[in-house]
Amino acid sequence: MTEAEDSFARLHTSSHPATTPKTNITLIGAGTIGLSFAALHLTSNPHAHVTIHDTRADLTEHILSTLPQYISSSSGIFDDYSERIAIEPDLATAVAAADIVQEQGPENAAFKTTIWPTIESHAPPTALFWSSTSGIPASTQAGSMSDQTRLLVVHPYNPPHVMPLLEVVPSPQTHQACVERTMAYWRRVGRTPVLLQKEVTGFVANRLAFALFREAISLVNDGVVSVRDLDAIVETSMGPRWAVNGPFKSYHAGGGAGGLSAFMANIGGTVRDCWKAGEEIKVGPGGIEDGWQESICRQAEEAYGVVDTKERDALTKDVLSAVKNGRADPRLTEEGS
Amino acid sequence: MTEAEDSFARLHTSSHPATTPKTNITLIGAGTIGLSFAALHLTSNPHAHVTIHDTRADLTEHILSTLPQYISSSSGIFDDYSERIAIEPDLATAVAAADIVQEQGPENAAFKTTIWPTIESHAPPTALFWSSTSGIPASTQAGSMSDQTRLLVVHPYNPPHVMPLLEVVPSPQTHQACVERTMAYWRRVGRTPVLLQKEVTGFVANRLAFALFREAISLVNDGVVSVRDLDAIVETSMGPRWAVNGPFKSYHAGGGAGGLSAFMANIGGTVRDCWKAGEEIKVGPGGIEDGWQESICRQAEEAYGVVDTKERDALTKDVLSAVKNGRADPRLTEEGS
Repeated sequence: MTEAEDSFARLHTSSHPATTPKTNITLIGAGTIGLSFAALHLTSNPHAHVTIHDTRADLTEHILSTLPQYISSSSGIFDDYSERIAIEPDLATAVAAADIVQEQGPENAAFKTTIWPTIESHAPPTALFWSSTSGIPASTQAGSMSDQTRLLVVHPYNPPHVMPLLEVVPSPQTHQACVERTMAYWRRVGRTPVLLQKEVTGFVANRLAFALFREAISLVNDGVVSVRDLDAIVETSMGPRWAVNGPFKSYHAGGGAGGLSAFMANIGGTVRDCWKAGEEIKVGPGGIEDGWQESICRQAEEAYGVVDTKERDALTKDVLSAVKNGRADPRLTEEGS
Repeated sequence: MTEAEDSFARLHTSSHPATTPKTNITLIGAGTIGLSFAALHLTSNPHAHVTIHDTRADLTEHILSTLPQYISSSSGIFDDYSERIAIEPDLATAVAAADIVQEQGPENAAFKTTIWPTIESHAPPTALFWSSTSGIPASTQAGSMSDQTRLLVVHPYNPPHVMPLLEVVPSPQTHQACVERTMAYWRRVGRTPVLLQKEVTGFVANRLAFALFREAISLVNDGVVSVRDLDAIVETSMGPRWAVNGPFKSYHAGGGAGGLSAFMANIGGTVRDCWKAGEEIKVGPGGIEDGWQESICRQAEEAYGVVDTKERDALTKDVLSAVKNGRADPRLTEEGS
């Protein structure tokens, strides 16, 4: 594989050419999330120099085959980005010049509590430490670090090169300045960082999505609607609505001039009736524990087979562009009340 | 008001010029939902002749001021549509030639159980009867009708001239042929009718949306995130994702080749942990009953004031077009797996 070998030779250096200002970002873990972040950093920030660290033996080939899928407009990724991307299998070397170390290794606490003290001992004293974990809070991960103030969770909504959201979740030990640097970084590159005030289970996006998913499973399990029809309902109602206005803003609008108060006064009873009815058929804790999963998974398999995530991501980008361009349209802002 | 008087004179006839094929649709109730449906019928179906019935004294002026907001491309609605729109304050006359009677009157069972027998006695024996109710099942509404086989719920997601979804909810008495005519009608005009198998409380769309809304309220009430930040989370993650792929398809994709089964095997524990954590802070039945509403409504008011629903609807249309055009793009369908 000549192309891979060529690229390997060019890439196996973590010394980037001097450019000012530049941000050295070291990615720990080159799975799909890591490489999606690599694509995001390279395309959203012309000053980002990305070093990718992973212990897998086929790292270069893996990057060569995967990363170009995430930078769709590029025909030769290592021609376009060769000055700003490096592969470094030695952890100490990988983090030695990092401004930001972003971790997306195995999702278990033992791995994370072990790797952070090692990273800490080799990275510059001002480096920011971000974990992409979907569930292990920074306060747990930082347990063995000597300085716990620089570590925080930056949880993406997958894949991060497409979805704008980053949930920023500091531990009680994280310094405010590190939180602010993190928020500022993501705002500067055009993403939507949202700061959570507590390290809650699952963070917020998954908590919300899984609450709806629970009701979805319950309704299918109760025989009200099929898996495919339930998806069709969401795709043609709250999906597009919430891409534009989130649930609070939607229901606040639903109350007219009286806002959310008026909405709750008008249909709070119906909302409550729906919550009650949901309690009666719910799956999981406090509800129906067994027998629901198999038939629903089979329905999904029959309905969808293997999902084309390329189409999904292309359409999602179109949706995000439509909202962004629409908000920037002066015809709309003039009409704004 | 010369324009109103002019239009009044032109419109106060329910006898449309003969055109074939035509569908006579009589709308009962000219509130925002009724007029949104009027706009939808007129623009989506060139053969639809729409008769609007309401008992309000200012009906014509109300229609003249409201309907043009829903047919945005038209400069003179009653010039463009005069042949296909009529106003009829007499109920018996309004339904006399109807192929479809679509009801969106006051949302109480007494009104609906009273009006349907009257409609039934004046409408043609083959007319379909649709109710736009968001909560009163057809089996309740039909209680006093002599023929209960033609009535079913067709529940829109507001506003119906924008949102593609129609939840079709027959009663156990509704004839299958009436269900099929209803589904066929909406498919023919390019909307997304979804048939529910049971008359469940709140139907499906609101059940799903309110389940997420409940978790949203609970998380804000627990101090995890603000109203505005929660909306930002949804707008930049599951909103755009679910506009493209509903929750089952999304998580089925999240499991890769193993689909939803693999997804549940991988992160079913996290899903369950999130459900458990949600149980602990939930508002409403079985949870925190008091004290959450006021502060959340105040936050919404401070964050949003009066929402610009014109901008919302314009952006939502852009989102829906982006998905539709993207799906029709041969570059994407060629890539489809």
